[in-house]
Formats: sequence, C-alpha cells, structure tokens
Amino acid sequence: MIRETLTVTQRDGSTYPVVFGSLDFLSGSLAEAGFRPGRAVLVTDLHVADEHGDHLEALLAWAGYQVHVEAIPAGESSKSAKQLDALYESLLRWGVDRQTAIFALGGGVIGDLAGFAAATLLRGLPLAHIPTTLVAQVDSAIGGKTGINHRLGKNLIGAFYPPRLVYVDPTFLTTLPDREWTGGLAEVVKHACILDAAFFAWLEDHWDRIVRREPALVASMIQQAASIKIGVVSEDEHERGSRMLLNFGHTFGHAIERTAGYGTYTHGEAVALGMKAAVHLSHHLHPDLPAARLLALLDRLPVPDGGLPMRMADLLDALRHDKKKQDGDVRFVLLRNVGEAYVRGDIAPEKVADAFRAGLGRRVAG
Amino acid sequence: MIRETLTVTQRDGSTYPVVFGSLDFLSGSLAEAGFRPGRAVLVTDLHVADEHGDHLEALLAWAGYQVHVEAIPAGESSKSAKQLDALYESLLRWGVDRQTAIFALGGGVIGDLAGFAAATLLRGLPLAHIPTTLVAQVDSAIGGKTGINHRLGKNLIGAFYPPRLVYVDPTFLTTLPDREWTGGLAEVVKHACILDAAFFAWLEDHWDRIVRREPALVASMIQQAASIKIGVVSEDEHERGSRMLLNFGHTFGHAIERTAGYGTYTHGEAVALGMKAAVHLSHHLHPDLPAARLLALLDRLPVPDGGLPMRMADLLDALRHDKKKQDGDVRFVLLRNVGEAYVRGDIAPEKVADAFRAGLGRRVAG
Repeated sequence: MIRETLTVTQRDGSTYPVVFGSLDFLSGSLAEAGFRPGRAVLVTDLHVADEHGDHLEALLAWAGYQVHVEAIPAGESSKSAKQLDALYESLLRWGVDRQTAIFALGGGVIGDLAGFAAATLLRGLPLAHIPTTLVAQVDSAIGGKTGINHRLGKNLIGAFYPPRLVYVDPTFLTTLPDREWTGGLAEVVKHACILDAAFFAWLEDHWDRIVRREPALVASMIQQAASIKIGVVSEDEHERGSRMLLNFGHTFGHAIERTAGYGTYTHGEAVALGMKAAVHLSHHLHPDLPAARLLALLDRLPVPDGGLPMRMADLLDALRHDKKKQDGDVRFVLLRNVGEAYVRGDIAPEKVADAFRAGLGRRVAG
Repeated sequence: MIRETLTVTQRDGSTYPVVFGSLDFLSGSLAEAGFRPGRAVLVTDLHVADEHGDHLEALLAWAGYQVHVEAIPAGESSKSAKQLDALYESLLRWGVDRQTAIFALGGGVIGDLAGFAAATLLRGLPLAHIPTTLVAQVDSAIGGKTGINHRLGKNLIGAFYPPRLVYVDPTFLTTLPDREWTGGLAEVVKHACILDAAFFAWLEDHWDRIVRREPALVASMIQQAASIKIGVVSEDEHERGSRMLLNFGHTFGHAIERTAGYGTYTHGEAVALGMKAAVHLSHHLHPDLPAARLLALLDRLPVPDGGLPMRMADLLDALRHDKKKQDGDVRFVLLRNVGEAYVRGDIAPEKVADAFRAGLGRRVAG
C-alpha cells in the first residue's frame, strides 16, 4: 500500500489525517487535506535542509507551490523568542497571507517553533507537519502542541494548534543519529508501557531487529506507536485527562534534564532514566507489577554515563519546578501493570528520592 | 434585573457567556462560568487601574482570589512584543500555573494583549474579559480575537482564543473620554448598518439621548450592539464568512489610519470616515441605497479635521497593505440596503479613489 492513514479527532469533531507513506506521494495527501497550491513556507533546520530540503522543495514546486525556505540552526536553542521573532520578521517581509501554508520539516524543535509561528501569524495559518525524527513521528508532531522555551523554563510559551496534516515517512529515520534514535525509542517504549501491553510484548519480541532499524519493523513500530498517541489525543485534546499519562517518566525526566544541565542527556535519554525511576516507584506501590520485565526492556535503551553524579537535593528541587504541578503537589504517572497507567500525587519525598536512586544508580549522589 | 446574559456559541458547540450587569455582581458570574477561587492576575492599564483597579481587586479578593495586578502603560504602543515579553516574565516570576485566571480589565489594547498572553502562557490559561470602553464592550472583547502589533503592521501576531466569560458593566462608560466614546459609537453604527435595520432606526430615534449618555439608553444600546456581534461570531468563529462583514468601513479605515499616521485619528474615527467612503461606493453600485439617510447618521459622529490633507496615492498604496487582501485583490464590505451587507473585490481604482474623495472631503488631496 502506498499510503496508510490514521485520523485524529478533535473535541469539536473536526479531524486531521496522519499519513504514513513515502514523501514522493505527499502531494496527493496535501490535496486531500485541503491544501491548495499557492504560497508556502518550508521551515526546517540546517541539518535537515542539507539532507532533505531540496527534495521537499522540489516536490512542493512540482505540486504547484511557490516555496520560501527558512532553514534555522538545529538544536533546542532555536526554540527561543529570538528565533521566533526572526521567523515572524522574515515571513512577514516575504509576504505571508492567511492562505500561506507552513510546512514544518524536522524534529520536535522545528515542529514546535514552526507550529507556534503558524498558530500566531495572522491569527493562524494552515500547517502541515513532516516529522523527520522518531520522537516527532510517534509523539511530538501529533496532538497540536506548539511552543517555545522561555529563559525561565522550557515550553512555557505555546499554544494548542492542530495541523491540517501530519505526513510520516519512515525512511527519514535511516540516517537519524544514534542518540536521537534512542530518544525516540524511549518514547515508543513509553507509549507501550502506559497503554498497550500487546505492543510492549511485540517490542520485546522484535527488539533486535528494531535496533538494527530493519525498514519493515520500523514502519510497523511507528504506526503502532503513533496510533497510541493518536488515540490519547483524540480522547483528550487539551491535556486534562488521559493525555497526562503521556508524561510517564517525564516528571522524573524533566528534573533529570534540568539537574544534569540541558544537553547532558537528550530529552529521550532523560525520559528513559525517568521511566526507570517511575517503575521503581510504581513497584513500591504495586508489588505485583512485573517490574523486572519492564526494567529489562528499559535497560536496553543505551543512555550515556552523564559525567559527575547529580545531587539528590538538586533533583528534588528541580521536580518542584515542573510546570505540571497542581496546587504545588507534584504528580506522577505510575503503572499498575504493563499497559495500565494512572496519575497520582501526594508521594512522600523519601519515596521520590528512593525512586531516583533506583532509576539513576551511580548517576546520583546523596 | 441584576444581570442579563447572552451566549456565544463556538464552532465546536462550546459556549461562553456575555453578561451585562454591575461589577459588584461579578463573583456570581465567575462561579457560573467555571472559575474557581485561586491565583489570578488582573491585567489593566495605568489609567483604568487608577479609576477601577482597586475596586476589582477588592471584589476578586473578597471572592477568594489571590490577586496579582499588572498595570501597563495605556495606549496602542503597549500592544507590542516588548510589552508582551515583560508580561510573560512578570507572570512567570510571580508563579502562574495552568489554573491561574487572567482578568483583562480595559479597552481593546488590554483585551488583545492580555488575551494573547492568556492564549500563549503554558498553552492557555482561563481568561475573562472585563471591557471598560464602548468599542471593547460591543466589539473587541467578543469573539476571541487576541494579538499584538508587529513593527511591520498592526495585529500581525495573534491567535483566536475564546474567553470563559465577558462581563460588561455599562457604568464604566460614564467617565470614558469623548474621542473613545465616539470611536465606540462608530462601531455601534457599523453593526446596525451591516446587519440590523431596526437597530439603525432605533439609533436614529434615540441619538440625542445616546450622545448625552443617558444610562438606560446606553445600557440598551450596548446590549443590542453586542448581540449583533455575538450573532456574527457564533455563526463564524474564525472569520471566513459573515465575520468579514464586521470589516465594513475598515478596509478604507485602515488605509486612512495608516496614511494619516497612527494617532491622528482614533481607530473608531478612521472607521467612521471609512464607512462614509464605503457608503459612497455602495451607492455607486446600488443607486437605490438610501445613502443620504446613512450619511446623515454617520455625519453625527464627530471626527477631528486631521491637519494636512492626505495624498490619494498614499491612501491607495496603504489599501494594498491591508492584510485581509486575498490573492492581491482588495475586498470591500458594501451595503445593498440598510442592514444588508456583502463582500466584493474587483473594484476599479478610480472608483475607490472617488469613494475616498466623497468620504474624506477636504481631508484628501489628489
């Protein structure tokens, strides 16, 4: 089959497609999603532009679009007010109007930044996500979250803004750097842990072929993982209920990222460590949880050593900065079983510290 | 009756109330609209803060809210990226979380700026508009438009973000400066011109008492005008159909504002002039239109002289910058009859120039 389509249903009943297929068949999906040839902006980063920019630009030109390319520096530091302002300026000078389509070609940074620009230019421009990393394909490009960082914290400025199309081409992953690949696998495993025991078992069974990036396995994995995310955001567009479950490993993970210093671990690596802490905490509360089985798969996600150990006091401080806190109480996503997650707060600090120790091993002191 | 409520229905079927009543009864409406006492930010300008800030702060404190007040300089120049950034910084340092309510107390500038901050902080905070000017009460606070200006043009950065409540207290208007009052009346007359011949006749009949700001007349006028806006945005949340009609006088008006230099005319004064131009153009296309009757009421809106005449070439240039242009064609809202408006483009430049001349009189040369 050339293209397969899953559908995100939003609270107002409107939908948008997540299409899995080769980029070469993009133009058909664009037409189906209501895009009309005209002015278009391709937002990407300099690395992705080198590898794939010309190809997509040519495809869009061939489909009748007049394309303006914005290639910005790769990396989290581009998710800034300064970069957003430069993007506004450039797009306005080029002459965007309300019909101009924005194509976000890249990983999470590009999707968040270009998506937020699309959300806030002229009160909203048509947006298509073309995610090029594993984490973007199975997670960040789906669900409408957009935004930038603020000097006081990550993702503090942003909006929910649905794309008109998400187009997923698994062949982008062939050349993905190892650490980005691992970070994506962490999110894939997370989706399985919280909501899909059968998918967790499938991952266990096929892990060796997945880590070799066998194309058929990768394509199947992406569709399965993306469909979990699609199910969650379709139920819960604005993160008030089951969408919280997607934060499994993230409350710990954010604290780890912050304490180790951004860049020490990738987001996905920090989430991998955070999930191990969360499994330990879950096991403490639910002695029947098959923690050994969960940890066996999580241990197969390679995470670098990280250098000097983090201080426990710093980790606990960092937890309190997590913006998902409610009324000052830090809330954790925990597992009752493989594929069964829930949210709870009111965890004693000693138990949190125990979880950090168990999850981080030699990476933490104190 | 203590409070009267009209309802805005959005495309997804969700609703929010527009309540008309004394500010003293605000807390009942807050509870009904789903606000829960907790942390709250009151965003206002320094003028409004002087007159009404303490009163609202006390009311909110009495209702159980922990209130942080942000009073920013009054005037259009506060609708800037710089002021937005300062607002982000201050609110984040104070410690907003996703449950923190934003109260926008003021005119259009405050509603747009505070609304956009609410739309984009932590991907969306609960928002209540408490408009204090006539134009905000009957127009800008209703419909979810938020945003800021960019150095390349007005309202270029923004989002559609619905409030949870709009609370309209007509007594704010008692102390409104004359030019702001007139600007609001221009929008009221506009609503009547485009959609409600009976309201137009009511305005003709009661004009002398309205301009004296008799409280009962003002309250009735506001409810009638606001209900027209509510009807339009309920049909058309995202400005693709009938919402365009609200731009009556605005295509000409924006060009007038831009050409005369922002600040020469208020937005409402420019719209009043723009409506006269639009009536002339409409009359040219529809000889049966009762133009004299329309112009008789429009002429009762006092607009200052504006100093040196504008150049026709500059006005026509400015028209082309209007962001509502589609495919380069400038579109105008025109009248077929009193209360019957429609949109069309493809107007010959000579006819546009004739309309400017007829609407602006000695204010234009060339």
